[in-house]
Amino acid sequence: MLVDFKRPCSHIKYLSSLTSEKWIKLALSNPIEILIDHAHCERKAAGVAIQLMFRYPSEPNLAEVLSPIAREELEHFEKILNFLKDLGHSLKALRPPPYGAELAKNIRKEEPDRMLDSFLVAGLIEARSHERLGLLALNNEDKSFKKLYESLLESEARHFGVYWKLAQTKFPKNFTFSRLEQLSKIESEILEETYFMPRVHS
Amino acid sequence: MLVDFKRPCSHIKYLSSLTSEKWIKLALSNPIEILIDHAHCERKAAGVAIQLMFRYPSEPNLAEVLSPIAREELEHFEKILNFLKDLGHSLKALRPPPYGAELAKNIRKEEPDRMLDSFLVAGLIEARSHERLGLLALNNEDKSFKKLYESLLESEARHFGVYWKLAQTKFPKNFTFSRLEQLSKIESEILEETYFMPRVHS
Repeated sequence: MLVDFKRPCSHIKYLSSLTSEKWIKLALSNPIEILIDHAHCERKAAGVAIQLMFRYPSEPNLAEVLSPIAREELEHFEKILNFLKDLGHSLKALRPPPYGAELAKNIRKEEPDRMLDSFLVAGLIEARSHERLGLLALNNEDKSFKKLYESLLESEARHFGVYWKLAQTKFPKNFTFSRLEQLSKIESEILEETYFMPRVHS
Repeated sequence: MLVDFKRPCSHIKYLSSLTSEKWIKLALSNPIEILIDHAHCERKAAGVAIQLMFRYPSEPNLAEVLSPIAREELEHFEKILNFLKDLGHSLKALRPPPYGAELAKNIRKEEPDRMLDSFLVAGLIEARSHERLGLLALNNEDKSFKKLYESLLESEARHFGVYWKLAQTKFPKNFTFSRLEQLSKIESEILEETYFMPRVHS
């Protein structure tokens, strides 16, 4: 049976593959679990931005852009907590999919490669979240969920842009393009091995 | 020679000692270094709040109070970055004083002691920052620095209150009081061994 889910008109062009219909179905049938998982994603994304500020405490023009990202992720985290609370749910620990840890294995250990890869991996995660939150917003039949996802997804694209600009400002352009292409392929390969649990990055 | 620095009228009563005049003199004579160090303190305080949210992802009513603290610390961090920029300075890595690491050694390793101690240590650091920022605000001859410190210090006291309330809500009252008393004495002892560099917690 063919399922015809709506797709956002614009994608972040650097993603190497579109999300499968299997994922969309799984996610739409588990709205609370996906939302709790997304709350954890926002918290983790704030953690990543702060971790980078800790790792490079004196890097020029880094904290200035990462600190506002971390704040916005936390704002969204709180927004989701409130939304869940109104529905009678609360945060709970969820087993994460292998996605984040698998991606992190591809961050090279030596500087300055480590910095470049960290920016690109953080950016790709934001890009994928943007695509998937867009799918959840477009295909949701529940208006309150739809509205929530619409309110969250725009900043994921913007955050991808911040990480991408950081990479381009601090590293030679050709170099960042080819590395993003490599990492983007890896990102898609990781998602091909579907982790059969409703998670934003399963 | 006696130096007569102004002291705030109200202290957080749980601190076991008042800051020495030696520290006040050192801090006032190194305004930029102290401010850069305080920027790092705000970043670290955001890191502590987020780390606790990571460690206890499903603890009821924890993320709800820690996430806003982390956001406020980051707001202050950005405020200081802008202030420094206007003066032609920027963030740089500073060797931290032993204070934070020494205090952390007193956090017991087993739960639930670890949680209680983490709240109390985080609270004591906020309390000490409140006292010292108050001294910097009161004794500063530069009006812009004075105003900046005044705008920052109130939330340090509020954050102490949040950690103290968390401890009291989640643990038996007598128990939290006696443990705070112990840790507060240790905090003062650590500061007696002055680290002769201009740092907020030297």
